[in-house]
Amino acid sequence: MARVLRIGGAQLGPIQKADSRQAVVARMLALLDQAKEAGCDLVVYPELALTTFFPRWYAEDIAEMDDYFEREMPNDAVKPLFDRAKDYGMGFCLGYAELVEEGGETHRFNTCILVDRDGKIAGKYRKVHLPGHADYDTSLRWQHLEKRYFEPGDLGFPVWRSMDANLGMCICNDRRWPETYRVMGLQEVEVVMLGYNTPVENQHTPDEAPALRMFHNQMSMQAGAYQNGTWVVGVAKCGVEDGHDLMAGSVIVSPDGEIVAEAKTREDELIVADCDLDKCTLNKTTIFNFAAHRRPEHYRMIIERTGSEPPAAE
Amino acid sequence: MARVLRIGGAQLGPIQKADSRQAVVARMLALLDQAKEAGCDLVVYPELALTTFFPRWYAEDIAEMDDYFEREMPNDAVKPLFDRAKDYGMGFCLGYAELVEEGGETHRFNTCILVDRDGKIAGKYRKVHLPGHADYDTSLRWQHLEKRYFEPGDLGFPVWRSMDANLGMCICNDRRWPETYRVMGLQEVEVVMLGYNTPVENQHTPDEAPALRMFHNQMSMQAGAYQNGTWVVGVAKCGVEDGHDLMAGSVIVSPDGEIVAEAKTREDELIVADCDLDKCTLNKTTIFNFAAHRRPEHYRMIIERTGSEPPAAE
Repeated sequence: MARVLRIGGAQLGPIQKADSRQAVVARMLALLDQAKEAGCDLVVYPELALTTFFPRWYAEDIAEMDDYFEREMPNDAVKPLFDRAKDYGMGFCLGYAELVEEGGETHRFNTCILVDRDGKIAGKYRKVHLPGHADYDTSLRWQHLEKRYFEPGDLGFPVWRSMDANLGMCICNDRRWPETYRVMGLQEVEVVMLGYNTPVENQHTPDEAPALRMFHNQMSMQAGAYQNGTWVVGVAKCGVEDGHDLMAGSVIVSPDGEIVAEAKTREDELIVADCDLDKCTLNKTTIFNFAAHRRPEHYRMIIERTGSEPPAAE
Repeated sequence: MARVLRIGGAQLGPIQKADSRQAVVARMLALLDQAKEAGCDLVVYPELALTTFFPRWYAEDIAEMDDYFEREMPNDAVKPLFDRAKDYGMGFCLGYAELVEEGGETHRFNTCILVDRDGKIAGKYRKVHLPGHADYDTSLRWQHLEKRYFEPGDLGFPVWRSMDANLGMCICNDRRWPETYRVMGLQEVEVVMLGYNTPVENQHTPDEAPALRMFHNQMSMQAGAYQNGTWVVGVAKCGVEDGHDLMAGSVIVSPDGEIVAEAKTREDELIVADCDLDKCTLNKTTIFNFAAHRRPEHYRMIIERTGSEPPAAE
């Protein structure tokens, strides 16, 4: 019997600073209704899905940004999404900024959660690879202050058995790092769910074509899917947000690395694919049979070095 | 001043069982002449470039295959290649089956070497990821006995400072594993050189389209290039060899992951690109600035597990 999860990628158009969480959740509910109509089992929303991508704005005191964070989940604003998904018997994956108080200290993470068909939070992931910088950079036309507002994730890259599947999550920049997929691949992940907020323009190389940026975005997910025999669902927040243009291109990628569904717009849009989990088996048991072929004794540098070091001189 | 290496990828058409090393080296010399004419600094030849891909044939006693191995390098058959490359002041990378006697034991490796402009062997790599199987498999229409005839490489993935560049090598199946590129990326590799012998047909899935197989081949190299900010030169032995069809598609890939040169034939063919090593800098210092962004504390599973393990039950 084929094990098929019908997955919806719920791409979101821009969220402006002035937009309330209630307005955003209403849009997410509309996409959830579409997903129900389409027979989806599981819906994936973007990174920081409830607000604008606030790390582009600088605040001297980071607590000034705390309004963009969620202190509990679900909270009043998000509860309608939990309730309706549970009514529909659908799971979902949701990205948001998380603020936790622990032992008198405040911690902030770029987080996503997996909510199962019963409305229970089955898994939580906190973004490990934070791009950008921590301090105001006068050389840039806009800021990318994830390293200022968030701590690096402290939960690793777990894989959960939920909805009769091995499900993993990562967030945005994580998708460009092969380590992300590999750690989940070593846990037999079958679906990697991720959201992203990625500028159309690379301000380090303003002449880089948007098509090349899209190629990098999608190739990273395609390679991760192929090399680990897993589905990958990558969902954008896109369009012109607070005057900043974010790329779209949400995709569902098969364990063959092929794009089987792709967003056509830069707005709220649902993409859908039937993800046959048994399609993960071929790569996992033949060319990428890890137990038969991997040689970790030669990979030690991957954990023994953080930065790179050049070879000895000639 | 731009640091440009003009690199030639010397794709080889098939080598039949009956072909002598002398005949093969004559073809390699013709490609070397073309490379000289084209102004190349460095030429990359395929995996096991001196013989047919013998691991497709079974021998009960593996020593029966020793005629396919080289016991010294250069030997008489290969010396003309060393001599002419030195005359031309060109470096080259050459794959071959290596047999070494050490302490009364015989060891066999799938090896490649880097020869510098002065004809000196500057680096040696032994293939780490050996695909296939060690015993005769009656379920297969042809055998893939690399695990029978070779030991896994014991030299890791070194990077050498040679020809004013950081040069690394891997072989065939290695190119599909992100660990391969990452270990070299952590040594600031600027050019990864590799050769391959890859069947057009995947006999585990005979209905897999050749175009999909080519996509996997090239995407693996493109992702490795992009994610580590390195040039990748991938060179095929191709065409119908001993009745077995090998894919072509030799490429030179930029640090952007883009294919800048690609073979058009399934025969002996030289592809050429100017590889500006300074193009490696952007990715290495921004999006893939390893020191700033990597989090090895979350990668430990990559070396602590060889095979995969499923997550705990729901």
